[in-house]
Amino acid sequence: MRIGIVGLGLIGGSIGLDLCRAGYDVVGVSQRATTCDQAMAMKAVTTASTDLSTLRNTQVIFLCTPIGRIEPTVRQLLPHLRADTILTDVGSVKASIVAAITPLWPNFVGGHPMAGTAESGIQAALYDLFVGNPYVLTPIASTPPASVQVIEGLVAALRGKLLCCDPAAHDRAVAWISHLPVMTSASLIAACLGETDPAVLTLAQTLASSGFRDTSRVGGGNPELGVMMAQYNQAALLTALSQYRQQLDQLIDRIATDDWDALHTLLHQTQTARPAFLSSEPQELGL
Amino acid sequence: MRIGIVGLGLIGGSIGLDLCRAGYDVVGVSQRATTCDQAMAMKAVTTASTDLSTLRNTQVIFLCTPIGRIEPTVRQLLPHLRADTILTDVGSVKASIVAAITPLWPNFVGGHPMAGTAESGIQAALYDLFVGNPYVLTPIASTPPASVQVIEGLVAALRGKLLCCDPAAHDRAVAWISHLPVMTSASLIAACLGETDPAVLTLAQTLASSGFRDTSRVGGGNPELGVMMAQYNQAALLTALSQYRQQLDQLIDRIATDDWDALHTLLHQTQTARPAFLSSEPQELGL
Repeated sequence: MRIGIVGLGLIGGSIGLDLCRAGYDVVGVSQRATTCDQAMAMKAVTTASTDLSTLRNTQVIFLCTPIGRIEPTVRQLLPHLRADTILTDVGSVKASIVAAITPLWPNFVGGHPMAGTAESGIQAALYDLFVGNPYVLTPIASTPPASVQVIEGLVAALRGKLLCCDPAAHDRAVAWISHLPVMTSASLIAACLGETDPAVLTLAQTLASSGFRDTSRVGGGNPELGVMMAQYNQAALLTALSQYRQQLDQLIDRIATDDWDALHTLLHQTQTARPAFLSSEPQELGL
Repeated sequence: MRIGIVGLGLIGGSIGLDLCRAGYDVVGVSQRATTCDQAMAMKAVTTASTDLSTLRNTQVIFLCTPIGRIEPTVRQLLPHLRADTILTDVGSVKASIVAAITPLWPNFVGGHPMAGTAESGIQAALYDLFVGNPYVLTPIASTPPASVQVIEGLVAALRGKLLCCDPAAHDRAVAWISHLPVMTSASLIAACLGETDPAVLTLAQTLASSGFRDTSRVGGGNPELGVMMAQYNQAALLTALSQYRQQLDQLIDRIATDDWDALHTLLHQTQTARPAFLSSEPQELGL
């Protein structure tokens, strides 16, 4: 099978490495010729080009650009696509992408591999990046079942853990566990900077250890990524933030009113609930 | 020098291990005889007893009980203390403890070693637990300078990084970097549990990975410890929570009004600010 990959960064490059090794014929496209050269040298692609028309004879194309470039890329691709080509993407939000791409190309299967590293770019691409990690597909009623099966086969080749759900459920779930944590963590850092006594701020910086390091990590990450999450998953994120704010207000009220029993009950609930979020085995979803 | 330690848990036991190894004569007191036996077997103490009167000839006593037991312990100790005995504690809040103990025993130096593990109890005690970690002392105007020097010498024996500041500054600083993160992290877990669709909650639990794991860690910890922070550092924590809530509201407003430039500016500030909290070298404090 001939596979196309548009966007040869960490994710696109890692998909290419695994599929090339598995014997697929992989055609890569990047805006930069140097990236194409590097991808070929690494064997992340069989061939690579800066020209989207080189994808004309591919059966499946992975769209691995930044989220904001997915729709423009599909529009540029349209003149070159074979009628039976299946498009799939790797964007971290799904409802807005599925809604934008499906009218342009109904043979589209939304996808989100939950894998990554702190690095980016083709030089960060790794073999086996997806092994054992959730790989979500979000087909809708109009998605051709045979196309979903083809993508499921490729997820199996990448050894991801396949999950299927509808795009809105995906977006709500990632709002809770990925996008909301970025915003609460960023607010934590920003709040500390509001300390009015510079000596106390310096002391806080000196005393900060693993608890602060972990809690602030995702809030100190790439600002472009954070803005992207908010832009493309705005509704689900605002719902999650609203729920969070209610919980925070309740907790503040318990502390302000010396209601230590109620605070203990809340902290006991969170202690009890957390392990269910740490299991590495996907559970039965029934979605 | 003969040193006393009341409370032979992780911190008391670890202080004992280092000081015994350094050649000090260490007398331990625990409420439980089995803990005394274990501490002696581990060489965390020279001798141990359940009887506070065995501390009568010590020059320095480390109070290593839970925070709520410090004041009652000092009251029980008073009949047994030599006039020149220095008391010091290891509690994670300082203003309320210093205010409670100083009238009972003016020769008191508040202390807070910023070290620990996820474990507790004498069996978790470790050599070198304090090496390279901040060890805060909070003398006040009435604290005898010679007593502060004695405790500074013991901090040096434990190879902690000595910091001195006033009790209120300590409490404000740890509110920002230790107590506030527990509350924001607990609110994150609690908010997720507010998802009304069980299938979406299950999906969120399945998709949660390192970002959620790190951000939720301290909010999923020991409820007793969280309640203790709130009880004994209530004012500073409420101030920090209020500032945090303002930041959160501002961030929500930016997302709700599509103000992506302002959101980017905020996330860029937090990205830029975070490294100052991760430095392992205490800076000049000027407190």
